[in-house]
Amino acid sequence: MKHLNYGKIVLIGAGHVGSAILDSILRMNLADEIVVINRNEKKALGVVLDASHTTAFAYSSNTSIRVGGFEECADAQIIINTAGPSIQPGNSRDRMVLLQTNVTVMRETMEKITAYTRDAILINVSNPMDILTYIAQHDFDYPKNKIFGTGTLLDTARFNKMIADICKVDAKNVTGFVMGEHGGTCFIPWNCVNIVGIPFAEFQSQFALEQPIDKEQLLHEVKVSGLDIVELKGYTSSGIALSVCRLVGAIMRNEKAVVPVSTVLDGQYGLSEVAMSMPCVISRAGIDRVLQLPLDEDGKEGLKNCYEYLHGIIEQVR
Amino acid sequence: MKHLNYGKIVLIGAGHVGSAILDSILRMNLADEIVVINRNEKKALGVVLDASHTTAFAYSSNTSIRVGGFEECADAQIIINTAGPSIQPGNSRDRMVLLQTNVTVMRETMEKITAYTRDAILINVSNPMDILTYIAQHDFDYPKNKIFGTGTLLDTARFNKMIADICKVDAKNVTGFVMGEHGGTCFIPWNCVNIVGIPFAEFQSQFALEQPIDKEQLLHEVKVSGLDIVELKGYTSSGIALSVCRLVGAIMRNEKAVVPVSTVLDGQYGLSEVAMSMPCVISRAGIDRVLQLPLDEDGKEGLKNCYEYLHGIIEQVR
Amino acid sequence: MKHLNYGKIVLIGAGHVGSAILDSILRMNLADEIVVINRNEKKALGVVLDASHTTAFAYSSNTSIRVGGFEECADAQIIINTAGPSIQPGNSRDRMVLLQTNVTVMRETMEKITAYTRDAILINVSNPMDILTYIAQHDFDYPKNKIFGTGTLLDTARFNKMIADICKVDAKNVTGFVMGEHGGTCFIPWNCVNIVGIPFAEFQSQFALEQPIDKEQLLHEVKVSGLDIVELKGYTSSGIALSVCRLVGAIMRNEKAVVPVSTVLDGQYGLSEVAMSMPCVISRAGIDRVLQLPLDEDGKEGLKNCYEYLHGIIEQVR
Amino acid sequence: MKHLNYGKIVLIGAGHVGSAILDSILRMNLADEIVVINRNEKKALGVVLDASHTTAFAYSSNTSIRVGGFEECADAQIIINTAGPSIQPGNSRDRMVLLQTNVTVMRETMEKITAYTRDAILINVSNPMDILTYIAQHDFDYPKNKIFGTGTLLDTARFNKMIADICKVDAKNVTGFVMGEHGGTCFIPWNCVNIVGIPFAEFQSQFALEQPIDKEQLLHEVKVSGLDIVELKGYTSSGIALSVCRLVGAIMRNEKAVVPVSTVLDGQYGLSEVAMSMPCVISRAGIDRVLQLPLDEDGKEGLKNCYEYLHGIIEQVR
Repeated sequence: MKHLNYGKIVLIGAGHVGSAILDSILRMNLADEIVVINRNEKKALGVVLDASHTTAFAYSSNTSIRVGGFEECADAQIIINTAGPSIQPGNSRDRMVLLQTNVTVMRETMEKITAYTRDAILINVSNPMDILTYIAQHDFDYPKNKIFGTGTLLDTARFNKMIADICKVDAKNVTGFVMGEHGGTCFIPWNCVNIVGIPFAEFQSQFALEQPIDKEQLLHEVKVSGLDIVELKGYTSSGIALSVCRLVGAIMRNEKAVVPVSTVLDGQYGLSEVAMSMPCVISRAGIDRVLQLPLDEDGKEGLKNCYEYLHGIIEQVR
Repeated sequence: MKHLNYGKIVLIGAGHVGSAILDSILRMNLADEIVVINRNEKKALGVVLDASHTTAFAYSSNTSIRVGGFEECADAQIIINTAGPSIQPGNSRDRMVLLQTNVTVMRETMEKITAYTRDAILINVSNPMDILTYIAQHDFDYPKNKIFGTGTLLDTARFNKMIADICKVDAKNVTGFVMGEHGGTCFIPWNCVNIVGIPFAEFQSQFALEQPIDKEQLLHEVKVSGLDIVELKGYTSSGIALSVCRLVGAIMRNEKAVVPVSTVLDGQYGLSEVAMSMPCVISRAGIDRVLQLPLDEDGKEGLKNCYEYLHGIIEQVR
Repeated sequence: MKHLNYGKIVLIGAGHVGSAILDSILRMNLADEIVVINRNEKKALGVVLDASHTTAFAYSSNTSIRVGGFEECADAQIIINTAGPSIQPGNSRDRMVLLQTNVTVMRETMEKITAYTRDAILINVSNPMDILTYIAQHDFDYPKNKIFGTGTLLDTARFNKMIADICKVDAKNVTGFVMGEHGGTCFIPWNCVNIVGIPFAEFQSQFALEQPIDKEQLLHEVKVSGLDIVELKGYTSSGIALSVCRLVGAIMRNEKAVVPVSTVLDGQYGLSEVAMSMPCVISRAGIDRVLQLPLDEDGKEGLKNCYEYLHGIIEQVR
Repeated sequence: MKHLNYGKIVLIGAGHVGSAILDSILRMNLADEIVVINRNEKKALGVVLDASHTTAFAYSSNTSIRVGGFEECADAQIIINTAGPSIQPGNSRDRMVLLQTNVTVMRETMEKITAYTRDAILINVSNPMDILTYIAQHDFDYPKNKIFGTGTLLDTARFNKMIADICKVDAKNVTGFVMGEHGGTCFIPWNCVNIVGIPFAEFQSQFALEQPIDKEQLLHEVKVSGLDIVELKGYTSSGIALSVCRLVGAIMRNEKAVVPVSTVLDGQYGLSEVAMSMPCVISRAGIDRVLQLPLDEDGKEGLKNCYEYLHGIIEQVR
C-alpha cells in the first residue's frame, strides 16, 4: 500500500453542501489539510479563502486549506464526493430526477479518482445516494469496505431527534435506524427502536405521552423532511454537512462507531448487487463490519420493497 | 429563588479524586469558575496552583480557580462532594467499611452546605454512595431532583466498555445499565442490554464471538473492577473523575441525557426511603425524570436484594 | 436587573451569514438554546430544521433551536444581529452602498429589541459596520459595554493568517491588529505587530524570508479580501460566522480575551461620538476595557483619517 | 523511513505525572492509541484500567489504552518520557538533586527506545530537564528536531498567567517567555513581553495597575512556583500534564505553534553543546525552527549565566 497522508481530506465540490462540509470540518478541528476540487475553480477559491482566514482564532486549529486537482487524491486519507447537482425547490420531490445527470458525473469523477488511488476512504454524498454508491464501487472495483455513502445517516438523526423531542430526552439516547434507500422506500425496523433499553411500545407510559407515537406519520415526516427544507430554505446543507463530519470523525479517531451508511451488500439478508443503508462499524480502515438488525415481518417487507426498487433502477442504468 | 452564578462549581475535597475532577473539568472546558474547599487548606492551595497555571495555553479556557470556604456555595450552580476517606488497598473490599466515618463527615458537610443553599445541583461522589446520598437528601430536606450520586455511572461505563471490547464496537453504541447499589448488590437488567437494537442474545452470532459472553463473570468483573484498581494503583481517580464530568457536562449543557445516578426513590417499582442508581434524565434543572427499565424475573430479584440490603443499612445508621 | 437565561442566544437574520453563524455555534457546542428571527419565517424555519436534526450525533450537544419573535430577546444572554442586505457581487466594492437601507433596518431592529431588553450583549454583524453600531448604541441608549460589532475582527484574523503563512507559523502566534473602520480607511499599527515578541522589522531575518513583507500590499489585500470573496463565491459566510463565534465563546466562557471589536469610543485617543474597532477585553459582562495600542506617527495619521471619514458619514445620517 | 502509526503514543512512566498525562490526553481526545510502559507493570495496569473505562461516555473518544513494552516504540508517532524519580517535598528545592539517578535512568531508557526507533517525536518530561534532554539527544544521536523537553513551557504558562491575572486579561493574550534552564538560572527577556502589542513598560497605565509590576519578584515566583506546589500538594502533576498535552496537540494537529521547549542548541546565539528552552515552531515533523528572541543586555547576561551553569553540569556528567 502506498503512503497515506493522515489527516488529509480531499473535498470534491464547492456548492452549498461542499462549502458547509468544509466549514463544519474546520469548526470541529477534524483535519490537518483539506484540498477543495471544483469544476469552477474561482468558486472553489472563494470558498477556500472565506474558510481559511479564521485559523488565527483561539480554539480553531491551524488547518491548511487550498484549491487543487484530482492528483491530490493520491495520498488523501479521506475523499468526500459532493459533485453533481442537488435537488431543487419545485423538483418532483424525488432524488431520482438527478439520476441520469449524476450517474454520468459520478462515473467521470470515479475515473479521475481511481487514476490516483483506491486506498482512500471514499464518502459519497451525491444523489441518488444508493445508486451512485453502487456504481462507484462496482464499476470501478473500489474496495467495498472503503467506499460508502452518507445514506440514511441524516434520516436516522432526524428520526432520533423527533423521538427525542417527543420523549424529552437527548437524541443521543435514542436507538433506532432508518434503513434502506436514502429516499422513498426507506423503512424503520421498529422492533429495534428503544431508549436506553426501553422498547418503543413502552414509550407512551414511560415518558408520559398524551397519545401513542404514530409510526406511519413519523416515517412520513422523516422521508419528506429533507425535501421540505429544500422548499423552505432553497437547499439543504447544515444537516448533511454534520453527517459527513460524523463519518470523518469516526474514521479519523478510529472510533468503531456504529452508524448507518449506504454500503454495497455482500450477502447480508441474502442480498447483493445493490447498495443501501445498514448500520456499519466505522473505523480508520473504513467499514469493519455490516450489522444485520433482526427484522420482524414488517421489516422484512420493507427491506424487500427497498431492494426491488433500487435493484430495478440499477438494472436500468447499467 | 436566589441568584445562581451559572458556570460556577464548588468542589469539596482536594484528595486524589477531587484533584482529578478539577483537572478533568479544566481539560474539558466545562466551567468558568471553580472553588476548591478542603479541610487542609494548604493541600487545596497546592492543587489549585498546580491546576491554574495552564490556562495560558491555546485550547484551554480561562477558568478562574481558587481556594474558598462553604460560603461559596451560596451562588454555586453545582456542588461536587468528595469529602471523607476513600477505600484503601488492603481494606475488606467493601465500601461499607467507610460507613460510620463517612456518615458523620457527610452530615457535617451537609450542615455547612445547607446553611447557604438548597438551589445548587449537588453531586455526591463519596462512599458508601447510596447510603450517603440518601442521608444527605433525607436528613437535610434537599430537593430530591437536585441531589444525586455518581452511583453506578462508572460501573455502567465499565460494563459498556467490556461488552464493546468483546464485540469490537465503540462503547458509546452499547446500551445497558448496572443498576442498584454502587457495590456488591448491583445488578444488570440483561433483557434491556443491546447494541444499536441488537439484543444481547444475538451478540455471539452478530459479532462472530468464539463463545457466548458469560453474564455472571462479566457482572463479577464489573463489581471488582474498582477494587482491583485500588490494589494495583493505590487509589482510583481517573474513571470517577470523568464520571463526574459527564454529569457536570449534562447539567451545564442542559442535555437531557439519560445516565444512571444514585437517586432517592419516590415510588419507582413501588420503592421509597432508599437511594440507588436508576437511569435518569439529567438537565440544567437536575433530574427531570427517573426511568424504570422493564425488569424480567432476574431483574426483579436483583432489585429486591439490593433494596433490602441498602434499606437494612439505612435502618442501622438512622 | 431582570433574569437572563444563560446560554440563550437570539439570532436575527437567516440569510447566508445568519445560517452560517447558526451552524458554527452548533458545531462548537457554544449554546443551549438558539432562537432564529427572520422577516421571512419560512426561510427561518428551513434553516432551523436543517440545523436541528443533527444533535443526535455523538460529540454534538443537544442544543434547542427554534423560530421565534423579538419577545424572545427579553431573557436572552446574547443577541446577534445580521438583519439587512449584504454587499453583492458587482456592487461598488464599498460597504457604504448599504448605508441608507441598513440604517433604516437597524433602527427598526433596535426598536424591537429595546422594547424587551438592554441587558443582553448585542453583537452587530450588519454593514456598514461602524455606522450601524454607533447608531444602535447612541440612538437607543444601549449600554456602551454591552453592544459591539464584529468590526475588524475578521480583517485582523485575515491579516494574522497572511503573516503566519509567510512566516510559516500558526496564526495564533501572530500579534497584530487591523484597527478603525471595517472598510476602506482601516489601518495597521505596524509598531505593535510581532510574533511571540519578535518585532515586524526582524521577520525577514528570523523567518528566513526571501524578501521583506510589503506592508502596503498586505494592507491592500486585507482590505479587498472580503470583497474578493464576494466576487468569487457570491457572498461571504464562513469567516464572518467564525468571527461571531469567537465573540460568543469569549462571552459564554467569560474569557477576558482581547479581540478587536467595533465599539463606541468614550475618549480613547481623545475621540468620541464614533464607533470603530479597537482591541477590547471581552468577558461575560461585555467589554471590560478598551485598550489603546501605542500609535506611531503613521498610526496616528491612520486613526485621524478613519475618524474623519466615519464621523462625516455619521453626521450625514443623523 | 519505516511506517509510523499516526495517533499512537507511547508513555513511559505511570507515576503521578505519567498518570496525569494519560488522563489529560484522554480528556482532550488527542490520540487513538496509548501504550503505557512502567517498570512496575501492576501499577501501569491499574493506571490503564482506571483510565480506559470511560470511553463509553458521550464526548469521550474511543481511545485504545494498554500496557506494553519498549517494542511498542517501533511504530509510535510520539514517545513521552517521564521515567525516573521526581523532586520530593523536603528536597533541597533544586531539580539537580535528581542528577545522578536520572542520568542513569535516561541512558537506560534511551537504549531501549533507540533499539526500536529514531523516527518518533520524543518528548522528555524528566528532570533535570535540560541535562537529560541533552544527553538523550547527544549520546544516542537522536535527530535534533525530533527530541525536545517540556523545559520552560510550564514556567512560561505560569508567567503568562501571573501577568494576565494582574492585568485582568486572558493569559492567552500575554506574549512573553521564560527562557533557558527549567530551573534556577532561567530568565525572562522583558523587552519582548507584551500584551497584544502593548509593551511591558506600559502595563501599569494601560491596565490601571496601582503599582508597577515587580520584575524580580515575578521571576522569583515563577522559579519557586513548582517547588511550592511540591511542598503544598506533595507532587506536581496537573500543570506538567497539560504542558505535555500542549505539545502533543501541536504535533498531532500539525500546528506550527510557537512554544518554548528544551532543545539542543545548534549555533543559536553562537551556542551549542547544551540544551535549553527557546521558542520553537512545532509541527508534525517536530521542531521546524528555533526562534531567537532579540535580547537586550539583561537578556544576554541571563543567557550567558544559564549557558555556563548548564554546560558546567554537562561537563561533569559526560
